[in-house]
Amino acid sequence: MFMIPKDARITLDPEEIPKQWYNLAADLPDLKPPLNPATGKPATAEDFATIFCKPIIEQEASTKRFIDIPEEVRDNLIFLNRPAPMQRAYHLEKFLKTPAKIYFKREDMSPLGSHKGNTALAQAYYNAEAGIHMLTTETGAGQWGTALSMVSNLFDIDTTVFMVKGSYNQKPFRRTLMEMYGAKCYASPSEYTDFGKRILKEHPDTTGSLGIAISEACEMAAKDEHTCYALGSVMNHVMLHQTTIGLESMLQMEKADITPDYMIACAGGGSNFAGFTFPMMYEKIRGKSECQIIAAEPKASPSLTEGEFKYDFGDTAGMTPMIMMYTLGHDFIPKSIHAGGLRYHGMSPLVSAAYDQGLMTAKSYDQPDTFHAGVTFARTEGIVPAPESCHAIKAAIDTALECKARNEEKTIVFCLSGHGFLDLYGYQQYMDGTLPSSSIDE
Amino acid sequence: MFMIPKDARITLDPEEIPKQWYNLAADLPDLKPPLNPATGKPATAEDFATIFCKPIIEQEASTKRFIDIPEEVRDNLIFLNRPAPMQRAYHLEKFLKTPAKIYFKREDMSPLGSHKGNTALAQAYYNAEAGIHMLTTETGAGQWGTALSMVSNLFDIDTTVFMVKGSYNQKPFRRTLMEMYGAKCYASPSEYTDFGKRILKEHPDTTGSLGIAISEACEMAAKDEHTCYALGSVMNHVMLHQTTIGLESMLQMEKADITPDYMIACAGGGSNFAGFTFPMMYEKIRGKSECQIIAAEPKASPSLTEGEFKYDFGDTAGMTPMIMMYTLGHDFIPKSIHAGGLRYHGMSPLVSAAYDQGLMTAKSYDQPDTFHAGVTFARTEGIVPAPESCHAIKAAIDTALECKARNEEKTIVFCLSGHGFLDLYGYQQYMDGTLPSSSIDE
Repeated sequence: MFMIPKDARITLDPEEIPKQWYNLAADLPDLKPPLNPATGKPATAEDFATIFCKPIIEQEASTKRFIDIPEEVRDNLIFLNRPAPMQRAYHLEKFLKTPAKIYFKREDMSPLGSHKGNTALAQAYYNAEAGIHMLTTETGAGQWGTALSMVSNLFDIDTTVFMVKGSYNQKPFRRTLMEMYGAKCYASPSEYTDFGKRILKEHPDTTGSLGIAISEACEMAAKDEHTCYALGSVMNHVMLHQTTIGLESMLQMEKADITPDYMIACAGGGSNFAGFTFPMMYEKIRGKSECQIIAAEPKASPSLTEGEFKYDFGDTAGMTPMIMMYTLGHDFIPKSIHAGGLRYHGMSPLVSAAYDQGLMTAKSYDQPDTFHAGVTFARTEGIVPAPESCHAIKAAIDTALECKARNEEKTIVFCLSGHGFLDLYGYQQYMDGTLPSSSIDE
Repeated sequence: MFMIPKDARITLDPEEIPKQWYNLAADLPDLKPPLNPATGKPATAEDFATIFCKPIIEQEASTKRFIDIPEEVRDNLIFLNRPAPMQRAYHLEKFLKTPAKIYFKREDMSPLGSHKGNTALAQAYYNAEAGIHMLTTETGAGQWGTALSMVSNLFDIDTTVFMVKGSYNQKPFRRTLMEMYGAKCYASPSEYTDFGKRILKEHPDTTGSLGIAISEACEMAAKDEHTCYALGSVMNHVMLHQTTIGLESMLQMEKADITPDYMIACAGGGSNFAGFTFPMMYEKIRGKSECQIIAAEPKASPSLTEGEFKYDFGDTAGMTPMIMMYTLGHDFIPKSIHAGGLRYHGMSPLVSAAYDQGLMTAKSYDQPDTFHAGVTFARTEGIVPAPESCHAIKAAIDTALECKARNEEKTIVFCLSGHGFLDLYGYQQYMDGTLPSSSIDE
């Protein structure tokens, strides 16, 4: 029987929600700009203008270190259960018999089920300000699509979501949820775009990919002037909006006198990872921290650990500018895994640059091992983690066990990106022993 | 576009979790004791001893007004995200164009998905203290079974859950969740008990009922001395443990200067309703409040609005003592509705007495109307409510619209008993227009 210490949960007041986002682009030297694939020259605002509204384009290119969070966005963050608590995984520590302390930041408490609302809210706000009536987007696991579908309601914007077919079929209730929130949700590749039709003709049995879904959403946005495209990860402005997570975490750690030796988050396109760790990278860059920052990615789509750092397209059709990132190639179609949010061929350019410059490391994990970590977490901490979050948990558990082997009282802080109540099919497969390896090597 | 006021969310510090539960039995005159059905005399502690441990039996009969919450229970409540926020339904108010203020208490934020953990934790603690190794229980919607399955892990207790077959088939992932937490989960009626076998023989196509599942769980508990039975609703000790909800709410309303004209909660067995409203009933009894307290029940199982106040069995087999309550008859088998947690033939004796003594009123609602209210809530407040909670939301919306018709600035506070991420099948049916009426009159 355990006694939970009173400081097991570190909360903040609503007034302590950050007033500014942190922009890592201000502090990374030699960032390579996106290129126009036709000219081979740096992409201009016009190259983005068919799919993004002006304030988003400006933010994307900004190298200002701190950017004000609009009052309308900040106030509505309360509604996403911000500020989010940081909690000590006291029961998990006991179970592992580790001398390490384990803390986690709780993005699972958003009513939208994940951290995705943080940027959805900002993007919906800027698009509404710019007079946009409809947003198109892609979604992998469904977390991003869910977030945008709901948040758009607050700004009278309609939403159309292209959901990767593998996830669409695996997670029918994600569609229910998006439709409940009033959005249209199509399995991608779909019949609703020219690119979707082409892929369906060439690969009728494909389970789709984020790259394909992005192409479809961009195509639809480009065709109508009051429609814009919203992306849930990868791009600089998304990373920026997500730093709310890390800025809150830094304040919580300061208040509770926590000096992390390790900060860990899962990484697919990079938004949860960036949001959680970029404020700590700022400390590292300034020589104020020696924290080890670790990205946990899936073996099914290991862009950091097995990809190449080069210019590539963000989507499969090659409609986006070329971006400098770690990539498995824009035509890479990963295996269908439950952590649909991590199934992307590339990695955020900012995260890629940070990785290239040695500010962080990365590890990749196979699907069954991450579900094992997720069940361990559920039995000890009572929380069912999203399959994406299970990657961070797996990395945190491994790190804690290394600390145990070396008898080191280190402090590990990871980000729980979302809950897994809509992913129980995957857990059932894991418990039934029917969950396959997802490694690209197998 | 809305601006959320800074007081939209009323939080408490962990130290403000109540130190004592409130026992309404201390303040209700003429409470009728449970009867031994064989003798017709008041049941003794021995009559309960085969299925409950001693501390629980003592609490069940207690008329002490305030009862200390053990430190081990109180500390672990943090882990269920207590204290739970109270929030203003600002977006819903705007949507309804009502002058009424609407607040809600957020039991959906527990990692277990509902308020059920509050008593699960207390019961697991007392049973562990009494040397019990296994708990048996029933579950309707699965919320209670989920809570007990998880919380028992903290006290090294195994759990066996009999889940009403209708819900078991409708909500396969509830079983996944309970099994993830390490519990055994059987569809009831089952082949694992004599009573289950008998029912299966007589009614092979039955979708089961809470009454049948209770009988099965009691039978299994009675057969082994280290096994006890745990009930998630109805009994006095359960109502007691749930008053944490209402005591927190009273403190939050005091802090935020909220004087409720209406307090509303859903009612099946009565635990969410009792937990939320009993502390306010104490104020009413002492002449310190004129708040109207409303129970929202389903038309499929309308024990308060259409039942009789009389002695009846708590289960279908007639294994429990006779209890004085509003009941539809212990052999009543309600239609299979998504709000499985409200599908009980009777009502908590304490809630029944409060109803009989005029401390509260009750309203019943048909299933499609409650889902309509749930979708409205999801689109405005972003939170997917449990089908049980949709009953409270429906009552709150109706009340707010009455206030609008009369142009009255009343204050409505309701309890959101849990989230509906595991109930999306019901929402899909609602949106497809295939959700049938559940009224017993049709």
